[in-house]
Amino acid sequence: MNQKAKNLADLYRDTLLNNVIPFWSNHSVDWSNGGYFTCLDNNGKVYDTDKFIWLQNRQLWTYSMFYNRLEKRSEWLKIAKHGADFLAQHGRDKDGNWYFALDKLGQPLVQPYNIFSDCFAAMAYSQYALASGDDLAREIALQAYHNVLRRQINPKGKYNKAYPGTRSLKSLAVPMILANLSLEMDWLLEDTQLEEILAQTVREVMEDFLDADTGLMYENVTPEGQHLDCFDGRLINPGHGIEAMWFIMDIARLNSDRQLIDRAVDVVLKILNFGWDKQYEGIYYFMDAQGYPPDRLEWDQKLWWVHLETLVALLMGFNLTQRSECWSWFERVHDYTWKHFSDRHSGEWFGYLNRRGEVLLNLKGGKWKGCFHVPRALYLCWQQLEILNSK
Amino acid sequence: MNQKAKNLADLYRDTLLNNVIPFWSNHSVDWSNGGYFTCLDNNGKVYDTDKFIWLQNRQLWTYSMFYNRLEKRSEWLKIAKHGADFLAQHGRDKDGNWYFALDKLGQPLVQPYNIFSDCFAAMAYSQYALASGDDLAREIALQAYHNVLRRQINPKGKYNKAYPGTRSLKSLAVPMILANLSLEMDWLLEDTQLEEILAQTVREVMEDFLDADTGLMYENVTPEGQHLDCFDGRLINPGHGIEAMWFIMDIARLNSDRQLIDRAVDVVLKILNFGWDKQYEGIYYFMDAQGYPPDRLEWDQKLWWVHLETLVALLMGFNLTQRSECWSWFERVHDYTWKHFSDRHSGEWFGYLNRRGEVLLNLKGGKWKGCFHVPRALYLCWQQLEILNSK
Repeated sequence: MNQKAKNLADLYRDTLLNNVIPFWSNHSVDWSNGGYFTCLDNNGKVYDTDKFIWLQNRQLWTYSMFYNRLEKRSEWLKIAKHGADFLAQHGRDKDGNWYFALDKLGQPLVQPYNIFSDCFAAMAYSQYALASGDDLAREIALQAYHNVLRRQINPKGKYNKAYPGTRSLKSLAVPMILANLSLEMDWLLEDTQLEEILAQTVREVMEDFLDADTGLMYENVTPEGQHLDCFDGRLINPGHGIEAMWFIMDIARLNSDRQLIDRAVDVVLKILNFGWDKQYEGIYYFMDAQGYPPDRLEWDQKLWWVHLETLVALLMGFNLTQRSECWSWFERVHDYTWKHFSDRHSGEWFGYLNRRGEVLLNLKGGKWKGCFHVPRALYLCWQQLEILNSK
Repeated sequence: MNQKAKNLADLYRDTLLNNVIPFWSNHSVDWSNGGYFTCLDNNGKVYDTDKFIWLQNRQLWTYSMFYNRLEKRSEWLKIAKHGADFLAQHGRDKDGNWYFALDKLGQPLVQPYNIFSDCFAAMAYSQYALASGDDLAREIALQAYHNVLRRQINPKGKYNKAYPGTRSLKSLAVPMILANLSLEMDWLLEDTQLEEILAQTVREVMEDFLDADTGLMYENVTPEGQHLDCFDGRLINPGHGIEAMWFIMDIARLNSDRQLIDRAVDVVLKILNFGWDKQYEGIYYFMDAQGYPPDRLEWDQKLWWVHLETLVALLMGFNLTQRSECWSWFERVHDYTWKHFSDRHSGEWFGYLNRRGEVLLNLKGGKWKGCFHVPRALYLCWQQLEILNSK
């Protein structure tokens, strides 16, 4: 096992450092106007210049995080600063809410209707404040974090189209991101505040969103944690549920909560059994818990982040529990993922495959795929493989 | 040609009367609560009970239209009245704007953020007023029509997330639906009002949205009819463009405008050349005018309405111009469509195929597919084939 783990660790590390990070450093930085281009074709050529705030902040986070955790490379800090300065100037409305999209010059295109723009801003500026020591970055991070706390009850605010009272659903994305975000920002928060948020998140995810009978994670439940028989209420997003589980394992590890770790691993395995395409391999994007036709037309596509987050969850689960199913699933998902998504020749990974695993969109970045899931997951897998190797 | 046209006319008529209308009459009417179920699986079993206003009104329109134009069957009027009564009671907010979705009891689920709910209400109640002679229906139709006129400048109202001023785009859907709707409501409008709207629509569609160089119809252009180099500005929806062209032919025929008819047919043929999948056949759902990756993940899927509206446009174009390309394209699209979408055994048609033409969702109705495009197109094709047959 040790030699295998070592070879894999080398693969994940080398791909991260020699293939993925250089792709973004070489192609995505808009040195003329500030910020980053994320719509990059197969070879890194920019095909659209709009700047989507999720992805701008995620790239700022990624470069800052690598500077903080991997190596103090001045190039990485320079690229981070390049995004941070642009976003600090253009990213927010006068009330401090984060827009959804800007044009290449930084002019706002889409209003701040989306709480996750603020989430990723908080994560990004928290990492960047650590990297740069910049007080303004720290202030921006805290302001964005407080936006998220304030808006979590009604994330879309006045853009919420649900009629009040008829049908209340809450979304897995909110506690999940809040947990991840609070862990990221622990150095800026009071200890008791962090503990409270994490305890509340774990309870909500593992009691309200987890279905005890099937072991599946639902995307939407009532505020009381009940299922509703409607499209949103039946929705399963396997990749999202699995990603949530490695956030939970992360929290459980901090608290040495072995029982919670086991439960999270159980859920990962249940979701994989449910969400794995037995005919063509790979993990479906969306499913209906009762097997009805989902309302998402892209339901059977295979997405990069789903598979990468699964690899992280499986390695983390294996290291924490030594359960052999984690390792056998890891090998299976690893083989599929590296065969279909990675691109040794042109750099970065493809994002969107059809059900058969064929490339659906000839791109390495777009409106929703930026410099985030690939480098983060390669880094986390590499770290987990080193732990395994050192045992 | 005559025997061929006669056989085809019989096929379209028989499928409409013996396969498609019975499917909806037997499976979709909610006799307990009012209105219609549209989420019907392959065999007509209800798998979701929410009531989407577009589809409720479209089904009311369809049954009323067949009663008016095809045959005075009391069963059809009864089914129309069943929907009309339910929607008159539950469909609108206190200001008369049409909600987007209701639950099965008629309680509002989604706010009136969408102008097309009002469009389809106007069409539906206009047909139903003709069928029933009901004064209230006539009032509801006119009220909805005035909502559309009032809201056409900013169709999403307060739910519009575009930041004002940075980038203005107008959408092909608005003039297109306004033309179709005004033709539908001609019996309720002043002659001069109708003529003005139609002239304005034709100008806007054929000058602003039609690209003179490529002959393609764009989904979004600036208010002045210029292209913008962004995802929405590069978007081509082949089926939508083709459907718009048969609306234009309809208007041109009324005015005996032979030149306009020829131009509309040219556009249909250009779009087909651009949007036809040379590898697997069928017409793509979305494309990027410059060949970049579209931002819609479902871009390469083959949708029922795209192919059905194309059949209507090609037959109408052939009858009006006798151009042989219309007929050869008709035969090609007809063969594909009947082979892949129709279902002789269980009734109605499949809606969503993957690029290879395999069924993607095992349903006959859903959130966006109801009793509308299949019966309307079968009826219109049948009528066109009868004209051809009688020549």
